[in-house]
Amino acid sequence: MNDGFEVTPYKVTGDIDYDELVDRFGTKRIDEALVKRLEKHGPLHPMIRRGIFYSHRDLDWILDQYENGPGFTLYTGRGPSGPIHIGHTMPWMFTKYLQDTFKVKLWFQLTDDEKFMFYDHLSLEDAKSWGYDNALDIIALGFDPKLTNIFLDTEYIKTMYPMAIKAAKKINFSTIRAVFGFDNSNNIGSIFFTSIQTVPCFLESMQQGRNVPCLIPCGIDQDPHFRVTRDIAGGLGYHKPALIHAKLMPSLTGSEKMSTSTAMNDTIFMTDDEKTVKKKVMNAFTGGRVSVEEQRKNGGDPEVCSVYQYNLYHFEPDDSKLAELHASCRSGKILCGECKALLFEKVWKFLETHQAAREKAKDRLDEFFVRD
Amino acid sequence: MNDGFEVTPYKVTGDIDYDELVDRFGTKRIDEALVKRLEKHGPLHPMIRRGIFYSHRDLDWILDQYENGPGFTLYTGRGPSGPIHIGHTMPWMFTKYLQDTFKVKLWFQLTDDEKFMFYDHLSLEDAKSWGYDNALDIIALGFDPKLTNIFLDTEYIKTMYPMAIKAAKKINFSTIRAVFGFDNSNNIGSIFFTSIQTVPCFLESMQQGRNVPCLIPCGIDQDPHFRVTRDIAGGLGYHKPALIHAKLMPSLTGSEKMSTSTAMNDTIFMTDDEKTVKKKVMNAFTGGRVSVEEQRKNGGDPEVCSVYQYNLYHFEPDDSKLAELHASCRSGKILCGECKALLFEKVWKFLETHQAAREKAKDRLDEFFVRD
Repeated sequence: MNDGFEVTPYKVTGDIDYDELVDRFGTKRIDEALVKRLEKHGPLHPMIRRGIFYSHRDLDWILDQYENGPGFTLYTGRGPSGPIHIGHTMPWMFTKYLQDTFKVKLWFQLTDDEKFMFYDHLSLEDAKSWGYDNALDIIALGFDPKLTNIFLDTEYIKTMYPMAIKAAKKINFSTIRAVFGFDNSNNIGSIFFTSIQTVPCFLESMQQGRNVPCLIPCGIDQDPHFRVTRDIAGGLGYHKPALIHAKLMPSLTGSEKMSTSTAMNDTIFMTDDEKTVKKKVMNAFTGGRVSVEEQRKNGGDPEVCSVYQYNLYHFEPDDSKLAELHASCRSGKILCGECKALLFEKVWKFLETHQAAREKAKDRLDEFFVRD
Repeated sequence: MNDGFEVTPYKVTGDIDYDELVDRFGTKRIDEALVKRLEKHGPLHPMIRRGIFYSHRDLDWILDQYENGPGFTLYTGRGPSGPIHIGHTMPWMFTKYLQDTFKVKLWFQLTDDEKFMFYDHLSLEDAKSWGYDNALDIIALGFDPKLTNIFLDTEYIKTMYPMAIKAAKKINFSTIRAVFGFDNSNNIGSIFFTSIQTVPCFLESMQQGRNVPCLIPCGIDQDPHFRVTRDIAGGLGYHKPALIHAKLMPSLTGSEKMSTSTAMNDTIFMTDDEKTVKKKVMNAFTGGRVSVEEQRKNGGDPEVCSVYQYNLYHFEPDDSKLAELHASCRSGKILCGECKALLFEKVWKFLETHQAAREKAKDRLDEFFVRD
């Protein structure tokens, strides 16, 4: 057993053993049978085929609900503390696939309150402002405005607060200590916060006045919040939310979770210009060898290469082309410089389109935002 | 030192030594000089003359602020978990005296969220409903609608939440443990709640966009909340709220705090009918002797008598008449039956007027309520 890693919504350390994490968290692996069930509803998303979304809670039950009539709703979110980078958008693109495939409502929460309470340096005003900035990237990804409600916690709190305190009444500090690893030095807002994170699981039910199942696509680091939610959902009169969990997107330095808290150079932001993107990609950590000669002879190692991971996660959706790239790397046929240049083309094409859509999103906020 | 009592907003046990409580809480006694300063602004309220409002924090500073121009605002509240009884109205009548004397704005908070989170049996819907019920009694006491904002936490949360989380960020669980005596078994809503209780101290400042001093008239059991608020006010950019503290109203059974959680018979509710009031007063605990003969000979003990306390706290505002009653009791001149009958007349007269005003208040809610 690998004890050398820790994953909570507030702390990710060590080399994550994703397989072990399933056992540790008590979730289930997405097995072949479940993949086949998903495929019945439309072409599989590459992140399913490639095991990036790899774990779940009650996803089979969600499909039952969908197939038998009651349907379901989607809920995901973002803690707005800075600009969006490509890693952030991965689970959201998957969420869009779910929305497109099942034609279901999405509740997209921007937790300005959370980020303010957890980040010493961040003002609430700045968190809120980042929320509006981040919403542009969310909208630019192409969510259906008729089926998408984006909200900032501080702007939707009147709707959420009564349910949040109903949840809070059922959660004691012992649970919070155990699940999040908090102690007496945590501020009381951070202790309360999981109650707010619980509410969007039930917003569709609250709005429709009937019990609507909810599926949460998210990074597996967010699972602890919803473990708490699942424990209390029944007592609040709702179904337990189901989850589908992604591995955490690697950064260009090769570390596990792409993060805005590491150096700017590690990550590609959605608003980066062409030159910056090129520089970041060309400086990316790879699985290349010390010399051209050695690489031609022994091949590179795509498993540890951030450039390959970018292709795997998003930028090479064609499985056969991805396999070809893998083989070319292994055999020493393709060198890192060329591979980076190919990735750069794909990333920049994606970002150029995104940035145009992002610009248009500035006039589209009201199509998506819900407020008290 | 008397260790045999405990006073927090959530627990009052033992025989309270009010004098010692001042030392324990680190508040100040209202001394003769301060009484004289208050008197400069208008006739003294009996509860000041009689030492019922007996302790304070920075009341002298509030008078400085008033006399030198910046002025101040008042804030008090009620946790709506059941019907209002006479004990509840005592500090509110004093608050009205402050409003009438200084012509200042009053923020009256109804903490439906708090009562729901602290009382196992109470639903949020019932707490809210009690809030509207209790507001009728508050309005019936005669507050100036132009200077009074009544609000329910769940209906004003959008205004309050941003400031509540700014407060919460500055308060850790260690502080909550120490101040309120909480432990790991407390629910996370109850742990968070003091942040909500903090906000009304600053609502007038938030509304006016300048730093407005705030005075809180309250039972001394509420002081711990505002001790926390005072510690963080500076960091939020506001003045520390000032306080003026009352002793807790005795019940008709003679126990220290009149409460809705003890039997109905212990307390006189604002909506009790004449017969019920008469029965309650006639059954009240007194300082009488076992027989008429003994009482005529040795006199009664007004100090332990709830009937005398009712007169002291409210129903005999004339100091000389109160002194006369005290002497008549001591000398055995007046017996308990007669004394109770006299109190009943006064209580019923008060309640009859109150109940008529309460009925009218049903059409006046919008004159007082503020909502998001």
